[in-house]
Amino acid sequence: MHQIKALVFDVFGTVVDWRSSVVSQLEAFGERHGIAAGKTDWVKFAEQWRSSRRIAIGGGGSTNVDVMHREILDEMLDQPEWAHIGKAWDDVTRVEVNLSWHRLKGWPDAVEGLKELKKDYILATLSNGNIRLLVDMAKYAGLPWDIIFSTELFDTFKPNPKAYLETMRHLGITDPSQCAMVAAHLYDVRAAGSVGMSTIYVSRPKEDNATEVGQGGVKSKKEGGEVDLVVTSFVELAKMLREGKRGGDSGSVN
Amino acid sequence: MHQIKALVFDVFGTVVDWRSSVVSQLEAFGERHGIAAGKTDWVKFAEQWRSSRRIAIGGGGSTNVDVMHREILDEMLDQPEWAHIGKAWDDVTRVEVNLSWHRLKGWPDAVEGLKELKKDYILATLSNGNIRLLVDMAKYAGLPWDIIFSTELFDTFKPNPKAYLETMRHLGITDPSQCAMVAAHLYDVRAAGSVGMSTIYVSRPKEDNATEVGQGGVKSKKEGGEVDLVVTSFVELAKMLREGKRGGDSGSVN
Repeated sequence: MHQIKALVFDVFGTVVDWRSSVVSQLEAFGERHGIAAGKTDWVKFAEQWRSSRRIAIGGGGSTNVDVMHREILDEMLDQPEWAHIGKAWDDVTRVEVNLSWHRLKGWPDAVEGLKELKKDYILATLSNGNIRLLVDMAKYAGLPWDIIFSTELFDTFKPNPKAYLETMRHLGITDPSQCAMVAAHLYDVRAAGSVGMSTIYVSRPKEDNATEVGQGGVKSKKEGGEVDLVVTSFVELAKMLREGKRGGDSGSVN
Repeated sequence: MHQIKALVFDVFGTVVDWRSSVVSQLEAFGERHGIAAGKTDWVKFAEQWRSSRRIAIGGGGSTNVDVMHREILDEMLDQPEWAHIGKAWDDVTRVEVNLSWHRLKGWPDAVEGLKELKKDYILATLSNGNIRLLVDMAKYAGLPWDIIFSTELFDTFKPNPKAYLETMRHLGITDPSQCAMVAAHLYDVRAAGSVGMSTIYVSRPKEDNATEVGQGGVKSKKEGGEVDLVVTSFVELAKMLREGKRGGDSGSVN
């Protein structure tokens, strides 16, 4: 049993719905530049853009996600499948398109849930996205962070344990169980758990398809699983943690 | 002429009134532990605590301000002048007293002014205080930061140029004039100016007594001085920047 002091959130996919946000912006850029609707699978485009980023992490290339997004965008637009887009988008347009990742909307429960949670806990981010990206996104989506941490600050990437340890050090938290990682990706909560943090898995549509668990397959320890809590929204999370406290449980997630 | 994108704030003395906030807490701790009111000059005590910190910075000792505050507190309470307090405060009490620095109130204009400024600019801190201290203070005083930077993240202290350069790098700002340092201490705005940042000096009661300028002695460039803007409150700052914008000046502070 332990008392949570801080909640540390993954951002992409966990807090913001990057997929629909990026797709709707791509569609708008497409229309503006005469790329006929229906001619291009923007969902596939967005997913390829995002999944190439995952591969880049841990490999070579820039550690700044903005730079990385642009490099991937340019590479994609050179491929035959997307060449018709590449012809339509000049450098100025590509700069603007790349900023789509700064204009992502929160999942419908995100802002309301975070505001509730902020009353009782320190709310931090821990994202592989760079600081400016996370700042712009917070302003755009109205995310009420107390503190924005990016792995950029710690010269590493999740799931390197250093990312989680540095976050706790700067939060002044010496008992890692008082710090809970909240993420929609099992690899992320697993890595946090491996350094002793509490673990909260949020099930989000179409996230975590790449892992062995898929949607709804992650279970809490109480149900024989590996994470402390499983929720489907931040509003639900706020309610569960508050009920835990009222039950004399002091915010325990076990 | 340049367009400001981000305002970077010093915190202690610039945003929060540490002096009256700490003194009122010291008085309360004194009363609770039977130290007769009137027997102790708590203003002197608070100022010695704070000024010893300044000396510690750049010298040896811990780079964590919480640890540093505690070291100084213990040293002070060993001195004859404060020995009557040292006898009254055990270790548990000293931990609590040390946390006084996490419970500081904003200057009367601070929260209102920051909320106004937040509509148009990225609001960042850049403080020699450690992250957890700044997070607690923001929650306590309701300071609506977009992003909290501490020199702790950059392994240095202000006025080392590295502190300002790292802040701009993480904000993705390549033209330093688009980033303005806001501080009530000339040494701080001067150091920011030396790396090309815009400079905004806030005149605050009893701050900057140690410099050659004193209260009200700092002038803007327009008046033949060395800083871009001089203001006495953040509400005034918000108004001036907005008027500059409306005047077609696009947030210029020159």
